[in-house]
Amino acid sequence: MRIITPQDFQTQRAPDDWVTGAVWMDRSPAGPSPDAGVFRVFFEPGARTNWHTHPEGQVLFIVSGTCRVGKENEPPVDVDAGSVVYFAPNEKHWHGANPDSYMVHAAVNPAANSNGGTDWLETVTDTQYANT
Amino acid sequence: MRIITPQDFQTQRAPDDWVTGAVWMDRSPAGPSPDAGVFRVFFEPGARTNWHTHPEGQVLFIVSGTCRVGKENEPPVDVDAGSVVYFAPNEKHWHGANPDSYMVHAAVNPAANSNGGTDWLETVTDTQYANT
Repeated sequence: MRIITPQDFQTQRAPDDWVTGAVWMDRSPAGPSPDAGVFRVFFEPGARTNWHTHPEGQVLFIVSGTCRVGKENEPPVDVDAGSVVYFAPNEKHWHGANPDSYMVHAAVNPAANSNGGTDWLETVTDTQYANT
Repeated sequence: MRIITPQDFQTQRAPDDWVTGAVWMDRSPAGPSPDAGVFRVFFEPGARTNWHTHPEGQVLFIVSGTCRVGKENEPPVDVDAGSVVYFAPNEKHWHGANPDSYMVHAAVNPAANSNGGTDWLETVTDTQYANT
């Protein structure tokens, strides 16, 4: 059993090679098995991650606002607070705020490896983002 | 990618052979890989699960109130809202509300099997619950 208190989370600005726009991340410290990566992430309207994959998948809880999620070869979809989104292992995708809301989600990357369980890829273009 | 909206969750009273006290569960429908079990669970003050284990571990997000968590051979610990608790695969434990708050948590059981990824065991006695 391992307890992460609110004071344990470390807040950092997400680097520009991971995201477009202002995105802040609260990240739990690495720990023993099951070493899930646990994050709270804050996106200004229009901000989004780059395309990326997770070797063991990911679960998002949309806490506030409307999340826009995209996967390859499909138009993005808007998902309201209270929803949960699963991404399968190695499924290429992105997520962020829609243009009209500040969006907060919690994220769990099961059995995350030392880079937080994420393999970062290219930027989501404005065209890809807007193509709902 | 799989999206569970708030309307997809199915609410049910937790059966008496899983819990002590009034506990309600919102459960996401089963799905494809990664078939995490995703739950929102509502505990009246003093209510708690039975002892149980998860074959692939579990992550709890404490959404509201104060959660009391116990593992074998250790006194239980109270954990405030905003905290995250990890349980390792097959670690015997329980969780519930402390005596003074209504507690809500979200729970993710990674790669949950058909019984929700939980193996249910014996009741948590009043003595075990109170031994903080």
